[in-house]
Amino acid sequence: MEKIVRQSLLYDFYGELLTNHQKSIYEDFVLNDIGISEIAALRGISRQGVHDLIRRCDATLENYEDTLKLIEKFLKIKSWVTKIHTLTGEFDKLSIASIQEKELVDQINDISNQILDEI
Amino acid sequence: MEKIVRQSLLYDFYGELLTNHQKSIYEDFVLNDIGISEIAALRGISRQGVHDLIRRCDATLENYEDTLKLIEKFLKIKSWVTKIHTLTGEFDKLSIASIQEKELVDQINDISNQILDEI
Repeated sequence: MEKIVRQSLLYDFYGELLTNHQKSIYEDFVLNDIGISEIAALRGISRQGVHDLIRRCDATLENYEDTLKLIEKFLKIKSWVTKIHTLTGEFDKLSIASIQEKELVDQINDISNQILDEI
Repeated sequence: MEKIVRQSLLYDFYGELLTNHQKSIYEDFVLNDIGISEIAALRGISRQGVHDLIRRCDATLENYEDTLKLIEKFLKIKSWVTKIHTLTGEFDKLSIASIQEKELVDQINDISNQILDEI
């Protein structure tokens, strides 16, 4: 997994456990894609300060995940739901299904989409 | 939701964030179904002490859920997956489905069971 994707997942799950100051800078870096130099200039702190803060946030958030493993759990569920979604797609390719059957599978497809939007 | 079910969910999600001492007593009470008087006697502490500790654990764990809302997210996903599971059951009642179709739906059913075991 790309580092920024991992950071964004960590933030999504555990970001609320950071202090407001940490959240604000981590969010600028990870979600708003603002560079370290720019964050430093905007906030009147050193590049090193921003860099250290982001590293500490990474460590704090990874520590929560090491302890709780909820991202791991979600990713497992996500991969299973993706598989369900793929299977409903294969079903659609079978031209022999009745309308009743297709309707049921369409509903399953809709729900799997809803879950994937949520995760 | 019954209080003990809620406590068990809270413990399952966030229990690792309690201290070992808290975990041990909360686990005895919530998961092992040992009464407050018995816990107090076994550990040589007062009933009031056990009672207060459990109440503090409840508050700590509810506070994590207020902040992170991950149980809420999981329960939503669980209800959707349960719906998928119900729909595959309805599909099985349609006697008109082909073997190919049934196989696909069986796979979806298996995966939804796997997810429900995990959640």
